[in-house]
Parts: sequence; structure tokens; C-alpha cells
Amino acid sequence: VGDNAEREKLIIPTVDFVEGAVRILDQTLLPADEVIREIGSVGELADAIRRLAVRGAPAIGIAAAYGMLLSIENLLREQGDGGWFFDRKKGIADISLPEVSAGAVRSRLSEARTELAETRPTAVNLFWALDRMTAAANEAPGDAVDLCRVIAREAFAIHEEELEIEFRIGENGSRFIHDGMGVLTHCNAGGLATAGYGTALAVIYRAHEEGKRFSVFADETRPLLQGARLTVWELQKHGIDVTLLCDNAAASLIASGRIDAVIVGADRIVSNGDTANKIGTCGLAHIARAFDVPFYVAAPWSTFDTTLASGAEIPVEERDPSEVTGFSHVETAPRGTEVYNPAFDITPAELITAIITDRGVIEQPNSRKIKVLSG
Amino acid sequence: VGDNAEREKLIIPTVDFVEGAVRILDQTLLPADEVIREIGSVGELADAIRRLAVRGAPAIGIAAAYGMLLSIENLLREQGDGGWFFDRKKGIADISLPEVSAGAVRSRLSEARTELAETRPTAVNLFWALDRMTAAANEAPGDAVDLCRVIAREAFAIHEEELEIEFRIGENGSRFIHDGMGVLTHCNAGGLATAGYGTALAVIYRAHEEGKRFSVFADETRPLLQGARLTVWELQKHGIDVTLLCDNAAASLIASGRIDAVIVGADRIVSNGDTANKIGTCGLAHIARAFDVPFYVAAPWSTFDTTLASGAEIPVEERDPSEVTGFSHVETAPRGTEVYNPAFDITPAELITAIITDRGVIEQPNSRKIKVLSG
Repeated sequence: VGDNAEREKLIIPTVDFVEGAVRILDQTLLPADEVIREIGSVGELADAIRRLAVRGAPAIGIAAAYGMLLSIENLLREQGDGGWFFDRKKGIADISLPEVSAGAVRSRLSEARTELAETRPTAVNLFWALDRMTAAANEAPGDAVDLCRVIAREAFAIHEEELEIEFRIGENGSRFIHDGMGVLTHCNAGGLATAGYGTALAVIYRAHEEGKRFSVFADETRPLLQGARLTVWELQKHGIDVTLLCDNAAASLIASGRIDAVIVGADRIVSNGDTANKIGTCGLAHIARAFDVPFYVAAPWSTFDTTLASGAEIPVEERDPSEVTGFSHVETAPRGTEVYNPAFDITPAELITAIITDRGVIEQPNSRKIKVLSG
Repeated sequence: VGDNAEREKLIIPTVDFVEGAVRILDQTLLPADEVIREIGSVGELADAIRRLAVRGAPAIGIAAAYGMLLSIENLLREQGDGGWFFDRKKGIADISLPEVSAGAVRSRLSEARTELAETRPTAVNLFWALDRMTAAANEAPGDAVDLCRVIAREAFAIHEEELEIEFRIGENGSRFIHDGMGVLTHCNAGGLATAGYGTALAVIYRAHEEGKRFSVFADETRPLLQGARLTVWELQKHGIDVTLLCDNAAASLIASGRIDAVIVGADRIVSNGDTANKIGTCGLAHIARAFDVPFYVAAPWSTFDTTLASGAEIPVEERDPSEVTGFSHVETAPRGTEVYNPAFDITPAELITAIITDRGVIEQPNSRKIKVLSG
């Protein structure tokens, strides 16, 4: 396990497994404080997921896989001499502990799975990762040591595969970014939401690594301000020129001629290319179209849901009014005010210039083209 | 002085002159607390304007006029028996004070003017009102008592004329609002920004008074949240159904089919109908157009600036980055982040279905039609 050192320098340490512990960058403290938390128990990790210290679908999946690995690390350590057994980059240490039975390993895994599954019950990637880890364990040989190794390899593989996907998205999309461009993005589709490199921001990072110099504009993204808190922080970490704006200032910025491309992530893309993403995305797409500015969506192939025919079929989650009626301890609207607070909106495929995925780019997306790439 | 009682019930007590004192509704405490402040000195009033306890161009103009009247009230009271001399609704009390000279009155007016002029140096209505009060005093007869009466009448006239304009806007615009409609508004173009009835909200209030029943949706209006803090509060006061949303949710709401009209105020309208208004307005206009939803601007005739040919000539004020990078005492973006924070944007005339003014309605506004109404 462990990828090349160059690549490691490019990623945000969102979630990782280091010397027998899960490490997460605590996103509840960003942007004011940059704190890496070493997490030594499944309970602690479940708590971190629950309080959004780690968030974003791919990042939650990886954290869950590492949570299951952590349960095994702790089982082994109870019998060992205090050293660690697993580390993503350094690999797997010697496991010579005859006292540990395969049954004990499976029992720990099962407990960990139950605890982690209760953290964010609607997070699809969480269950995908827990299921994948469970399947690997079920298919593993009966020997306890071999079983532990399978578990570790599966967790690291989940992380590495996600990273690989994100690097591919970056490679596939960077051709749309040119020197001197102004690029607008919305919400946080970056390393903090993923394995460490991002989706929409992966495209921006890759273009930057290729030596292109351009300006990024980040919508603050009400109500939870992921753009202001996370995207700006990430881009600054990468040394990329970034300017923050209120969501409602995007039209004025686009009208001023300073934006040459809009690029966003996606929560779900259906058969015909209609795309669900953070609230605010579809308005941006309409305004980009009015000014003939290309509008790109960047997402892993796993975001496609070809069971749905069009965006009209995507259920839209309405979130709590308190996200809009107050900030911190300040009430910003009269008590009891009615609120319209959908978590995301649907951008029609016809407003999307291209969807950038790890499998390739779909220009002017439609059902036929998506079916072709689905293979 | 004093208009009919029915009308008085319809207005927000934004600013008034009551029994020898200026009264303002302290907008810094809304929506949590509704506090009417009695202001007894020009210094206190200047302070209230400076800290935005009273804000909005027409409201500031009226407050300034009342500030000059307050300086005279206090001069007379220094010689009197403790009673008040001026009240907008009750009228002017007997002024029989031979000790007060016209020179002393003019000297007080001049001091008050200087102090008030320093509060919001870029506020056009502030200077318009101070100049009008000064001109009235200059043209007044030499007798001290007559001079005081002229001053009072001019201040009350400024307030009443503004109110009359706002009621006319409401009357002229209410025909665009029908039973069962969904109406979207942005920022606060209501009684809190004006003499008490509003511009865009005057149209809504008038339609409601005519017995029409409809739903209003209010953009929160980042960064200063005038929609959440003020518009929602005002509409609730008037008993109108209102739902709050983040600015970036407007496109999703319009796409859902729930909005039949958008109505906003204006900061400046130029010869060809291009309109400067709160940041976020032009994006809303583009989205309304994409969904064929009518887009109305409501503003007093004084908002027109026919010295400029098109919106491109309107200077756009950039405001402080701290409005976007933090809230209350919480930093929401990394320290030192670059920010794009224009106070308003320009909506091209071709996106405006009609401009509703006190002089009449200009449908599909253009230079010719605006010139005709300029008469």
C-alpha cells in the first residue's frame, strides 16, 4: 500500500489511517483552526462523523472503512506489546498473535459496523463502504491473521481507489481550464469532502499543477457556508488565487466578464444528465447560460444513478429552518418564521456544457451519451 | 398637518415627530426586539443615523428634516414652560416667545445641518432633505415665530409627500398582484426603509388591503440579511403570509412553479431603464426571464437619474470584506481572504417587465417611455 510521494503532497489530510489510528482534519474548527485529531476508538470516530468533523460522501465512506479497521487494530493491540499494526503509507506490521481468533475479529467487525451505521443513516457512501468491508471479511480465509490483512487491504484500497478516481477527474477536466481564466465554483467539491483531492476542485488543482495560472471565485454557499469555510481554505492551501463572494453576487460577477467557466460537483446525476447538487447550482447554470459561460459538472462515476430517468424524480431533502433563521447564537429572522430550505436543486442537462468523470468527459450530456459511457 | 387615521394604521413607525421629539423604530434591534426610541437632541439623532438605527434613503431624508426641526423645538423649549411645540399629527402649538430671535433660529438650524450632514456622507436623500429645509428657512419671513412655523411645515411636508408617493406606488402596482399568487422579493423595499409604507412592499401591502390573498417569499439578502431581519418582520406585522429563503434557493423556488411575480425596489434607474438595486437583483431577473416570470421594479420617481444613459455608467460601491468573512463574532472565512462584495448590481431594462412609480407604470421600459413620463 502507499502511493507515490508526489501525489501525497497534493492531497488534503481529510481522513487517513496512520500508525494504528484514524486521523481526521477536524472540519468543525476550520477555517479558524487547523487541527488533526488522532482517533483511537470506533466510538470516538462515530462521534466525529456525527458532529461533521469529517463530512462529504466519499470522505465519510473512507472514514467508515477505517473505523472497521480500527476495531481490528484495537483488538490486536489488546494482545500485543503496544506497537501499531496498520498504516496506510507504511503498510502492515507483523501480526504474530496466536491468541486472536478469527471469530473474535469477526465479532469486533460486526460491532464496529453497527456503531458506524448509526452515525449518518442517509449517507449512501457510508453503507457502501461498510458493506464492502463486510463482504471482504466474509470472503476472507478462516485464519485470523490473514483475515486481519484482508480487512486492512480493503480499507486502504477504498481510500486509494477514491484518490485514483479524483486524480482521473482532475486529469480529464484540466483541459477546460486555461491561463488567465476566471473560474467560479459553488459549495465545497474539494479534498475536504473526499479522499483528499476533490472533484470540481480536482480539475482546478490539476490545471494549477500543470502550471496554468488563473483566478478562482468561490460562492460562500448559504446556509452552511461550505464555500467560505472550506473551499477558500483549501484553495489557499494549494496556493491558488481565490476570491470569496456572496452567492447572490455571482450574477454581477459573471455579467462583469470576469468568469470564463463555472465548475461544480454533483450529489446525483440521473440517466439524462440532469444533476442534483448543492442549492444554488441551478441558478448559477441559468445565469452562466445567459452570458454564454461554459458550465461544468465534475463527479465520480459512482454519482450516476441511472435508475432515474430525469431530475424530476430525484427526491429533494428539506433541511431545518434554523439553518436560515439564525447564525451561531444570533437570531436573524423573527421566531417561528416559515422557511424554504432545500439542501440541493436540480440543474437540467441542457444547461451543462460537460460532465467530467473519472471514466471520461461527456460533452452536452444526454441519455444516449451517458448510456454509452455506462458500458 | 396629519393625514387620515386609516392610512396611519398602515404604516410602520420608522421615523416620526411626536410631541416635540423624534421617534424612531430602532432597526438594529430587529427582529428580536421592537423598540421605539424617543430622541431628544440632534446629537442623539446623528448617532442613530450613523449606527443604522434608522436606514434606507427616504427614511434618512425624513430623519434629517426632523433633526433640523428638533433643533428648533429645543431652542423654543429652553425659553418655554416645558410643553412641546411640534407634532406631525397634532400640529403646531402656540409659539409666543418674544425672547427667541430669527437669528438664533437660523443659527441653530445651521448647527444642526452641519452635524447631520456628517452622518452618512454618501446618502443623497440626506442632503436633499437638509437642502430643502435650508432653502425653506432662507425663503421664510424675518419673524422668528413665522420662521419656526415654516420649518415645521416643511419637515412635515417632506414626510407626508414621501408617504403620498409610497401610497401612489402601491395603488399603481397592485393590479399586478392577484389572488393565489406567489410573489418573490429581495432585500427590504418596505416601510422600514422609507416613510413607512415602502416601494416594492407598498405594492404588496396595497394588494393585501384590497383583499387579495397571496404568498410572499423573501430572499434573506446576504450579506446584511435585510430580507430576513426586516422584510419578514414587516410582512408579518401586516399579517401577510411570508416564507424566508436563502438567496441561492430562489432559482429552485422559481423552477418549482411557485413564483408568479418578482418585485424589487431600486437604488437608481437611468434613462434607458437599467436599474441599480441590492446585489442579487440582476441574477434574479435573469432567472425570472428563463422561467417567463414577470419581473417588476417599484420605485419613487426621485430614483430616476436621467443624467446617465445606461447602467454601465452607474458607479458600483464595493463594501467591506468583513461583511462576508464573518458573522457577529465568528470568522466564517480564513483571515485576509480576498472578497468581491459590491453593494448592488445592474439589471438591464430588457429584463424588467414594468417599472412601477408614483407617476405611473412603465411597461417594457426604454428611453422613449421614460422620457415621456419625465414630461
